[in-house]
Amino acid sequence: MSFAELWEQLLPVGRDAQTGGYRRYSWTEPDEQCRAWFARTAAGLGLATDCDRNGNLWAWWGRPGGESGPAVVTGSHLDSVPDGGAYDGPLGIVSAFAAIARLREDGFRPARPVGVAAFTEEEGARFGVACLGSRLMTGMIDPAAARELRDGDGVTLAAAMRSAGRDPVLTGPDEELLAAVGAYVELHIEQGSLLDGLGAAVGVAEGIWPHGRWRLDFTGRADHAGTTRLPDRRDPMLPFAATVLAARDAAEQLGALATFGKVVAEPGAANAISSAVRAWLDARAPQVSVLESLVDEIGAAAAAAAAEHGVGLLIGRESFTPLVSFDPSLRERISGVLAAAGQPAPVLPTGAGHDAGVLAARIPTAMLFVRNPSGVSHSPAEHAEPVDCEAGVAALTAVLADLAGP
Amino acid sequence: MSFAELWEQLLPVGRDAQTGGYRRYSWTEPDEQCRAWFARTAAGLGLATDCDRNGNLWAWWGRPGGESGPAVVTGSHLDSVPDGGAYDGPLGIVSAFAAIARLREDGFRPARPVGVAAFTEEEGARFGVACLGSRLMTGMIDPAAARELRDGDGVTLAAAMRSAGRDPVLTGPDEELLAAVGAYVELHIEQGSLLDGLGAAVGVAEGIWPHGRWRLDFTGRADHAGTTRLPDRRDPMLPFAATVLAARDAAEQLGALATFGKVVAEPGAANAISSAVRAWLDARAPQVSVLESLVDEIGAAAAAAAAEHGVGLLIGRESFTPLVSFDPSLRERISGVLAAAGQPAPVLPTGAGHDAGVLAARIPTAMLFVRNPSGVSHSPAEHAEPVDCEAGVAALTAVLADLAGP
Repeated sequence: MSFAELWEQLLPVGRDAQTGGYRRYSWTEPDEQCRAWFARTAAGLGLATDCDRNGNLWAWWGRPGGESGPAVVTGSHLDSVPDGGAYDGPLGIVSAFAAIARLREDGFRPARPVGVAAFTEEEGARFGVACLGSRLMTGMIDPAAARELRDGDGVTLAAAMRSAGRDPVLTGPDEELLAAVGAYVELHIEQGSLLDGLGAAVGVAEGIWPHGRWRLDFTGRADHAGTTRLPDRRDPMLPFAATVLAARDAAEQLGALATFGKVVAEPGAANAISSAVRAWLDARAPQVSVLESLVDEIGAAAAAAAAEHGVGLLIGRESFTPLVSFDPSLRERISGVLAAAGQPAPVLPTGAGHDAGVLAARIPTAMLFVRNPSGVSHSPAEHAEPVDCEAGVAALTAVLADLAGP
Repeated sequence: MSFAELWEQLLPVGRDAQTGGYRRYSWTEPDEQCRAWFARTAAGLGLATDCDRNGNLWAWWGRPGGESGPAVVTGSHLDSVPDGGAYDGPLGIVSAFAAIARLREDGFRPARPVGVAAFTEEEGARFGVACLGSRLMTGMIDPAAARELRDGDGVTLAAAMRSAGRDPVLTGPDEELLAAVGAYVELHIEQGSLLDGLGAAVGVAEGIWPHGRWRLDFTGRADHAGTTRLPDRRDPMLPFAATVLAARDAAEQLGALATFGKVVAEPGAANAISSAVRAWLDARAPQVSVLESLVDEIGAAAAAAAAEHGVGLLIGRESFTPLVSFDPSLRERISGVLAAAGQPAPVLPTGAGHDAGVLAARIPTAMLFVRNPSGVSHSPAEHAEPVDCEAGVAALTAVLADLAGP
């Protein structure tokens, strides 16, 4: 079972014919197809599969929680952002199965259980909270609140899980499963171009920038675009626009990142002044203190612009992840294994959140990155060369052999 | 059949329980209910009803196109913008029926036919072209192009008409019907607060500012919000924001109006840089030359901001209506009638488009406005006092009696 074979099987699932991008949202039909692929692939490798109480998938080589000691788990996620690329998430799952296939062919006998995990709703594309599956498992989100999260059509997570045959009442912290996992190593496509600049196929993650998502609700007054004098308007589009530009300026000054990628104008008629503009700010910075300054500056600019136009403003934090430093000893051990295998891997920071970042609070965790010459992510243009994917599988195989070896 | 009775019957149709606003989009279920109300009301008054080839409704007192001469028609529209108010459109139709009821009660015998028209898709809320019904009837839009207009779900006008039991092949100029109409008088709620400032219940329209709608497509590159360095981004949200602010500045300087009320960010994920931002500009000015300067200035600002961020820009004009001056002799005649009836009505300009503005190119046309103390329109807060609505009915009754009299 080669990487290329597995990759080709998964490639068409949930791909939009027009954009070439993926729409694999959790608990939808494409997601079910991804889950079926996961189960078939695991079965083909002789692995036992399980869906945990939070909807995350697991495939096991050896029995977890048994006497052979804590398991070594690798994996990633199968869901996508709207029109995402093929690699973000699936590369880690496919590489995990390909690495296990290689270990089996090599006659490797694990001294402790080896697992493959596919975490659900990592992107937060359907229910708005990134890394939802790993957050639920580690108790970092209240399960009652999570069950009431709604998608764009008003469907709750609870209803979506029920219609997929899962019982949402069971969602929540899973201490037994967490205790059974001794280390988690996530392989992921790089979402920038640092490896490309360094001429390396594979890298090791240092940590994840603190980051979060804020929702800004600008509320004005709906009015006729053709008859309302400019001074009489309370148009929420104007302070929103000023805030977009202020966010870019503040991010530049602070060496941070700020993005507005989602905006909804209500009622959304071309000939009506909006009653409300709702916008989502994604902000990231190297330190929590810088992130706080960034969000404070953007909030102050938004408040000033809103006041100028007689527009109301509410800012709410939807998610926040503090600085994640991956386990230093695990990282050094992995670096050593790769150097010894003739595959030295540079150490990189990243601004992207991952399930590995959530799990890092409870389990020794590490990440491998695979070179992305496009430099882009969350886009159909995201790409990794087959030779680099194979290098990723080789690296992961060496790491698993070391961590699960005698 | 009083104004208040008719008004109460129509009031619940298509009203959203949460916002209190109306969602009466053409060829949808609420539109069908409005059409059924129109037919019932006309029948109750002994009027013959007809739906013309373009989907506009007509109710006739007397046979149009006959030997008694060209008809006097009054009316407006029943469709709404998203979450529009109750008055914009329906006030003119309800007032028309109430005026005819009053003429009948008074024993008035029209010397020429009197008609009530309800034009379809006046707001352009479903298919994006305002005054679509009157534009089709007067040949101001190519019917083949109109049939291919699509709503937000990709449904064409042709398909929507077919599913409502209408044959879209028949859409297009209706010279026979136009020839049968000698004058069109549209009563409408004022969409500003000039009458309120003047202390008058009813006004007469002078003309309609030239206005139009432009679509701006900013195309950038989808990217991960957490990993793409600011200088590497091609984020279309930034030039869009700069354009919103530039449009307001240009409108202020030129004494004109510019509004962005509709914007769509693609793919619309909170953690992804947009691949495209599509925005609609509504622009209006007292003269065509000023409107051209306004749109040129906004376009230049958009192009400069797009270039600065490596973003592509396409600007397309979706609709344009030149300056409309309503027929001066008809306006003076109406002013005289109202003054003689003890209801002197000030003459007002307006920035809003109406079917009357489209028909003015072919038929002597006039408009009556009814005071709107809220000053707002295209909003659930839009309001007219019952006493002012009655004043509007009285004015329209006097005007119809004069124009259709012996």
